[in-house]
Amino acid sequence: MNTARGAVRPLYAQASGSPIRAMLALAGREDMISLAGGHPDPALLPIEWLRESLLEVTGKLQGRSLQYGATEGQPELREASAALLTQRGLTATAAELIITTGSQQAIDLLARVLIEPGEGIAVESFNYPAALQAFRFAGARLIEVPTDAQGMDVDRLEPILLTERPRVLYVVPNFANPTGAVMPLARRLRLLELAAQYDVTLIEDDPYGELWFGEAPPPPLVQLNQRADSPAQVTYMTSYSKVVAPALRLGVLLAPADIQRAVVLAKQAADVHSGSLEQLKLSAMLGSNCLTPHLDVLRKAYAAKSATLADALRRHADGLLKFDTPQGGMFVWARLRSDLPLLPTQDWVDFGLQHKVLVVPGAAFSISNAAQPWLRLSFANPSPASLQQGAERLGRGLQGLASRTSSNTKTTPERTSA
Amino acid sequence: MNTARGAVRPLYAQASGSPIRAMLALAGREDMISLAGGHPDPALLPIEWLRESLLEVTGKLQGRSLQYGATEGQPELREASAALLTQRGLTATAAELIITTGSQQAIDLLARVLIEPGEGIAVESFNYPAALQAFRFAGARLIEVPTDAQGMDVDRLEPILLTERPRVLYVVPNFANPTGAVMPLARRLRLLELAAQYDVTLIEDDPYGELWFGEAPPPPLVQLNQRADSPAQVTYMTSYSKVVAPALRLGVLLAPADIQRAVVLAKQAADVHSGSLEQLKLSAMLGSNCLTPHLDVLRKAYAAKSATLADALRRHADGLLKFDTPQGGMFVWARLRSDLPLLPTQDWVDFGLQHKVLVVPGAAFSISNAAQPWLRLSFANPSPASLQQGAERLGRGLQGLASRTSSNTKTTPERTSA
Repeated sequence: MNTARGAVRPLYAQASGSPIRAMLALAGREDMISLAGGHPDPALLPIEWLRESLLEVTGKLQGRSLQYGATEGQPELREASAALLTQRGLTATAAELIITTGSQQAIDLLARVLIEPGEGIAVESFNYPAALQAFRFAGARLIEVPTDAQGMDVDRLEPILLTERPRVLYVVPNFANPTGAVMPLARRLRLLELAAQYDVTLIEDDPYGELWFGEAPPPPLVQLNQRADSPAQVTYMTSYSKVVAPALRLGVLLAPADIQRAVVLAKQAADVHSGSLEQLKLSAMLGSNCLTPHLDVLRKAYAAKSATLADALRRHADGLLKFDTPQGGMFVWARLRSDLPLLPTQDWVDFGLQHKVLVVPGAAFSISNAAQPWLRLSFANPSPASLQQGAERLGRGLQGLASRTSSNTKTTPERTSA
Repeated sequence: MNTARGAVRPLYAQASGSPIRAMLALAGREDMISLAGGHPDPALLPIEWLRESLLEVTGKLQGRSLQYGATEGQPELREASAALLTQRGLTATAAELIITTGSQQAIDLLARVLIEPGEGIAVESFNYPAALQAFRFAGARLIEVPTDAQGMDVDRLEPILLTERPRVLYVVPNFANPTGAVMPLARRLRLLELAAQYDVTLIEDDPYGELWFGEAPPPPLVQLNQRADSPAQVTYMTSYSKVVAPALRLGVLLAPADIQRAVVLAKQAADVHSGSLEQLKLSAMLGSNCLTPHLDVLRKAYAAKSATLADALRRHADGLLKFDTPQGGMFVWARLRSDLPLLPTQDWVDFGLQHKVLVVPGAAFSISNAAQPWLRLSFANPSPASLQQGAERLGRGLQGLASRTSSNTKTTPERTSA
């Protein structure tokens, strides 16, 4: 059966599954607190709003709703999405949009139509793992651009563009996963200049941009680009997963005409179109004008949960973790004190099982998968009580690691001189 | 903007859209009869059944239904699909199945995980265009296996396996699109022997298998393989598009464990999972035990429409077209009389506009896209009256072509000696 097994390409046969998914398999265990997932708060999922839309769609059900639809998406949802983007300051018409099966599909299709196998794509130091996986499966080589608390370090980008010559760059400028970073306006403008100068196509991924707590982030790159003298090539996508519900699997892609044409051809071959009834339900939801008040609710709730986790971490893991209080999004990105050991991902799984608190280590978001002195802690999904208790357990566990390290340092002869 | 345009890979930038989709854009014109699409009859789409399921799902809506779900699919739909396959004689458990966004996605994901860019895949002479497109986009080279009225000519396969060494073969054994062919049992068994002997992974695509008119086709390859002494590697997929509704975009993939793992990883990166509510709706529909009576209705209705089109063609295009009366599926595959001209696809579009009847020329289904002496005529979507009138218009148009050809033959000096 060796040859039969060999039927799977090594690219896929040797790929590892998502470490976060492996963690989530443990999240349901008794007495486990998970700060690992990027799932919305179940209490904030709009069941009633969806229920009303379902009834509306049911009442208006026509033969057309059951037939094959356009690859680009249902006209109602393209119109509603264009209106939403316009309201946010973008220039976008329904005809320019493609409805995708979540923004994940937009990432995947763009990777396929833009990047030749073996070619490079420039990405931030820490990234959403499923984006990196999509790029890897497209055969792309990942080119790291240094990243700090303000997102991609654009000042250090130009030498990379000169030496590595990537034609495509992936960036999450708003409340990035995992870093929570927001790219300041000056960096955005400089990134657009560089993209135009070096003919780099930007993939701007914006799933979290609406989840700001204090003030809205600067305008998206695609919007700033529309005002530029020498425009760059920018594709922009956003998702309804974080602001309505992940289960619908609906996202929106805005792309220049040649890329849009290619993505439509790719999507025809990938799945013909996304589910029509999900699209009609979401159109009905958006049509009821409930999104704006719902966003207010989400912002307030996530801001409160973010503060709860940050306060609890300061109380229970003071000195062991260093982090900025999030200004939006779903994550605290915390740096481990420098004397704490750099553990491989599996050790953080074991840590989670031992201390009953799941966290995702930085390795999961890095290009190399090598151990990193960072943890991603999600405040979105757990209850406030669980956030506090999770921080307490995490603090206790980290203290254990710290004391073990210090006793190791004392007792391991090779390390006494280090 | 040249470089910007160059951002799209030539594989996609130079790809042509589906000629069938181009035809369908004309199908809505006044007084046009379309025998071109593969769309189900709108009168046979189960609006009431879906409406009841929508109400059921609405009533039972939980937070879980709105949250991220498993990449493999909603448990309810995997269970219901396993029960359905088991009822049809296959050995399949829910754990072995993946719910895909239509069987199109299964084709695409299998192409991606199985075929290295540049590698070959063996396919029938005439194929579903979107499958060929998915293989091309995966970078595959298409290897033609001669095909006749009984599907893939398995006797002529072995020399191809010896010389071309494909590791993957795509086949639609039941009421294939466009040929309508059903592969006899003996060919199925021989194909499995060859696949086992030459370590070829079979992709068995079965969207039409339940739409038989007289008697059910032989068992699927995957089922026969389960009884074989030396089993081959077979992946099997079917779709709910033709038997319930295309809009749901739901299909089922059954694959050996190593391929299943790879497809799940690929799907995580492609779209995370298919829409949950579409899955819950379909589960509710299947749970109501209405599928069996619905299939009876579909079989009778499509059998009657097939007979209507076949009779009308014999009346109006006698001698100009040669075809077998379909035993299932949605298509008449008709050979043009040998003296009729081999026209490129665009000429058939013009023919359609002139005679107000759209048909798809064989070129659309061929590997080379070269003109073929075949037409695919769909009886699924038009009303019986349109089928009759469409056949009449087609016959008149073909007679026009025939008389033009014969007058050309008389007047063109170069051809008088041919």
